[in-house]
Amino acid sequence: QMPRGNLETIHHRALVLTQLRKWLDGLKFKDAFECMRKLRINLNLIYDHNPTVFLNNIETFLKQIDSINHINLFLTELKEEDTTKTMYPSASPSVSGKEKKKVDIICDALRSAMETIDSQKYCLCILTSHVRKTTPELEIALQKVHELRVNPPSSGVSAEEALKYLLFLVNVNELYEHSLGTYDFDLVLMVAEKSQKDPKEYLPFLNMLKSLEANYQRFTIDKHLRRYCKALRHLSKCGEEHFSELLNLVKDQKLFSDALELYPSGSEQYRRLSVAHAEQLMEQQQMEQLEQAGLLLWRSGEPARALQAFQSCNSWRNALSVATQIPMPADQLALLARDLAEKLLEARRHSEAALCLEHYAKDCEEAISALVQGAAWEEALRLIYLYNRQDIIETNLKPAVKDAHSNQSFFLESQKALFVRHKNRLSVVREIKAKASLELFGEDAPDCVDAELFSEASSVLTGSHLGSKYSRSNSRISSRSSKNRRKAEGKKHSLKEGSPFEDIALMNALSQIIIVVDGMREELQCLLKALVLFQFDPLSRSLQTDYSDLLHLMESSIPEIWSETQQPGQSSITGPNSTANSIAASFHQQKPVASQQDTEALIPPKMRHTIKWKLDIIK
Amino acid sequence: QMPRGNLETIHHRALVLTQLRKWLDGLKFKDAFECMRKLRINLNLIYDHNPTVFLNNIETFLKQIDSINHINLFLTELKEEDTTKTMYPSASPSVSGKEKKKVDIICDALRSAMETIDSQKYCLCILTSHVRKTTPELEIALQKVHELRVNPPSSGVSAEEALKYLLFLVNVNELYEHSLGTYDFDLVLMVAEKSQKDPKEYLPFLNMLKSLEANYQRFTIDKHLRRYCKALRHLSKCGEEHFSELLNLVKDQKLFSDALELYPSGSEQYRRLSVAHAEQLMEQQQMEQLEQAGLLLWRSGEPARALQAFQSCNSWRNALSVATQIPMPADQLALLARDLAEKLLEARRHSEAALCLEHYAKDCEEAISALVQGAAWEEALRLIYLYNRQDIIETNLKPAVKDAHSNQSFFLESQKALFVRHKNRLSVVREIKAKASLELFGEDAPDCVDAELFSEASSVLTGSHLGSKYSRSNSRISSRSSKNRRKAEGKKHSLKEGSPFEDIALMNALSQIIIVVDGMREELQCLLKALVLFQFDPLSRSLQTDYSDLLHLMESSIPEIWSETQQPGQSSITGPNSTANSIAASFHQQKPVASQQDTEALIPPKMRHTIKWKLDIIK
Repeated sequence: QMPRGNLETIHHRALVLTQLRKWLDGLKFKDAFECMRKLRINLNLIYDHNPTVFLNNIETFLKQIDSINHINLFLTELKEEDTTKTMYPSASPSVSGKEKKKVDIICDALRSAMETIDSQKYCLCILTSHVRKTTPELEIALQKVHELRVNPPSSGVSAEEALKYLLFLVNVNELYEHSLGTYDFDLVLMVAEKSQKDPKEYLPFLNMLKSLEANYQRFTIDKHLRRYCKALRHLSKCGEEHFSELLNLVKDQKLFSDALELYPSGSEQYRRLSVAHAEQLMEQQQMEQLEQAGLLLWRSGEPARALQAFQSCNSWRNALSVATQIPMPADQLALLARDLAEKLLEARRHSEAALCLEHYAKDCEEAISALVQGAAWEEALRLIYLYNRQDIIETNLKPAVKDAHSNQSFFLESQKALFVRHKNRLSVVREIKAKASLELFGEDAPDCVDAELFSEASSVLTGSHLGSKYSRSNSRISSRSSKNRRKAEGKKHSLKEGSPFEDIALMNALSQIIIVVDGMREELQCLLKALVLFQFDPLSRSLQTDYSDLLHLMESSIPEIWSETQQPGQSSITGPNSTANSIAASFHQQKPVASQQDTEALIPPKMRHTIKWKLDIIK
Repeated sequence: QMPRGNLETIHHRALVLTQLRKWLDGLKFKDAFECMRKLRINLNLIYDHNPTVFLNNIETFLKQIDSINHINLFLTELKEEDTTKTMYPSASPSVSGKEKKKVDIICDALRSAMETIDSQKYCLCILTSHVRKTTPELEIALQKVHELRVNPPSSGVSAEEALKYLLFLVNVNELYEHSLGTYDFDLVLMVAEKSQKDPKEYLPFLNMLKSLEANYQRFTIDKHLRRYCKALRHLSKCGEEHFSELLNLVKDQKLFSDALELYPSGSEQYRRLSVAHAEQLMEQQQMEQLEQAGLLLWRSGEPARALQAFQSCNSWRNALSVATQIPMPADQLALLARDLAEKLLEARRHSEAALCLEHYAKDCEEAISALVQGAAWEEALRLIYLYNRQDIIETNLKPAVKDAHSNQSFFLESQKALFVRHKNRLSVVREIKAKASLELFGEDAPDCVDAELFSEASSVLTGSHLGSKYSRSNSRISSRSSKNRRKAEGKKHSLKEGSPFEDIALMNALSQIIIVVDGMREELQCLLKALVLFQFDPLSRSLQTDYSDLLHLMESSIPEIWSETQQPGQSSITGPNSTANSIAASFHQQKPVASQQDTEALIPPKMRHTIKWKLDIIK
């Protein structure tokens, strides 16, 4: 034979792929495989080209390939990647499915077929299929090697060869550790011998292990392998004398939930585990953790420590429950209640503070004061009459109601001013934008008759021309990483005059004002009732009028503020006068507004018209 | 002179209007006026053409017209309508302002000018300007006539002539009534005499009036003229003996607020008015009205009746305040509290019911039961320890917590099933829609090169072809009456398979499920804490897992459910391959979705990620 020329090895890839696809479609796996191997084409294509066909014809595949080495080659080259999409895309849509665990599917299918046909012959391939799985099944593979040793096969691969092959596929130490994990010392020794490890290293350890009680032995191995959950389970079977060791393991590895599952809820172990968990939670000094620690301590019969936990996270109901359970002397209970109330007042939870003060500190005056502070007029009045302290009405309640009136009036006024300012500025900004967009599109409007123009128009749209000032650049739209989005949002929200998204920022601000003011319905009704009850008629009248006017202003402004986004020049878009450019322009106008980030600002806030707040008795 | 031919009177309107505009711009009011009068062109145009110019040159206008009749003609022809927009639109944008009260502005401006120039000469025009105002100033006009009679002018119009002219402009009876309203009997007689009314009719009435005390006289006149507010004010000055008459007037005309303003808040009249108002409110038997009635009765020193009002509208705090104020005997107070608690329980306001039962009915057992029923576990536990009734924990609380667990688990499961069903159906519906839209636009896609095609495409879009099945017809979009919208919404929300807006309905339903399930965070955390406290660890574990999984499922589904609406095929719209039709198609796809009505369904519901509900102690 003549020596081959270089030219012969040059192939046009598209032609090769077409040929490969034909072979694969025709189930000519052998031809395809040989060709791919020669031309170094990724073997995944055999499966990816049409997964269903491959899986349905695995036996044909095995028969045609008929080489342990080649099957192993195929198995080792498997990747999750779909090569019809990445390396070898084809014009016609590929038939590939979307299974997540492609490698696992092929390994399992091939192994199943090989075990049916001839498990002795395919012995090494079967081992490969275990090792190649997403989570390598090393223990099963080792078990199979062990079986070979115990029952040497009449023909085919010996245990020794199999083990050698495994060691070729997998790191020695990893294999040794996994052999330990089977708790089968025969297997361990077999691997250890082949591993060229020093017997002086592993034999003492193995002997020590052998001397241990079965469960403790397994615990020791699990711990050595850092399989703490398994270790915990084995240790829990070792009896009471090992419980403190277990507790340490649980604390170190934070396995409280797992540990609690191993003991009945009434048992001493369960109790000690709960307490240990609570102690660890309390170290974190966070509100949520503290309350949960309190619950654990409480249920473990440690009310005093539970109280401490509840008190420090202001879980006042639980704190008071525990305190009364202990039971605490009245004067200490009162002190506790005052402490809780103080924190509740700081958190503006006035009614709860009042409850603590009324029932546990037995101080109705302070309780009423808390309610007055929290504008809970009706509740304050209820306590005033309950404790027959009508004097407080004149000294505290009425002045507070008057103060609340002037505060609310002032607040409404300031919100109104801000609202009007933003609204006016919004229409100015919109006018500027409209002008800018007219200037931009006005130029090429007359001569647009050809659809080709679109590509020009669109390149203008995405270009820096417009993006520079009034629209976000497209690159920012398409980059979806949340970090970038947050950055863009930060910029978007600038209310500074002339900022690129000032209109969006204004709409957001307007929406916020509406939501805040609309949210005052209940509060204001309560205040109005108090004003009426105390015969402050002019005050109630002015407040009702102010609030009603402001709500009305907002409601009537909504269509104006949020109109553009809903029907942006609808008539001009599909009308008979519309041109390619006008459509592009209108679409563009809509686009930067309707993008993912800004949708919120584009939806008018919903006002809660169903909440009737007005008093009919005031005009 | 020769008789004129018909032809001469035919003018081309556009030419005439152009000429008129030139004249008006040149301040040639006379020429314009003559021409308009001859050709019956609406005189409003004189002002509408350029309001600012007209108002700045009123004296020129008056000088040029220089005819009382013509000025009156101009005044009487004034309308709010802007004729440059309605009857005589011009190509160039009109300079007209947007004042709401155009007629008032012109009347006031002309009158002011005429009074400065020569009030005697323009007397009738001045009267016209009063009568023509939006709210005719008949009394001022009458007053001016009266002045003419008292001080007859040296020259010009006499009182008699002026009155005759007024009667020509205004209905006799109206003028007579308004003359009464001036409380000036001279004026009344003058009008009455000119009115050809029968003196036997009006003289006895006038004489009767003259015999009355001044305030009561005015009240009688105001009442006769149905000016009840004024009548009320005059009657209130008539002293105590007329108060019952006042009370009747107030009740009949529902002038409570106005009446209360007339009396100091401590006075007996104020009290009686408040009570009367309350009585009327109570007749309506509506919750809100009843509470307000209660407030009025309470402040009027009628606690018993106030209690009745508060009790019947379940205003429990006020009811208990009033009851303790009365004061009510303990056994009756307990009954009242039980009654209030029962109604509160019906309204699912368990904590408030518990408060009534605990403090007023002194029944801690019932109070705890109410809290347990309302799943207020912590609060129930607080009362249990406060009243040392730990037995209830085993008998009621623990079983209730277990029940709550199974109810919530069942609910979560059902919501999950519904969510998955809707979500799957949504993707089916979308596929169907996508196919339908491909079929529709696929046909004419190849041969679209001309912008003219748009009109065709748009007519297809708006036509019945597509509208019949999957899009709403355009007529429905444009009809904005709220009634129609509500109708459309009703249809839109049909979840029936194949309904035209099934996708929107599904999105709405999915959004609702997410909102409901997401809203359970706090409630579920409370339940989890109770489960932990009572050592129901397996239950807490399963519930936490179920809820966590469901939240996760929803969160991960949001991008899929709401993706299409956010970036609907963005790349294909402005890319180089896009055609007029593809843009129209993509626009169309977006349009029915992005219309006003459906925006809500298009916004993914916000999940409250900030609300941490999970307990760390459960895994």
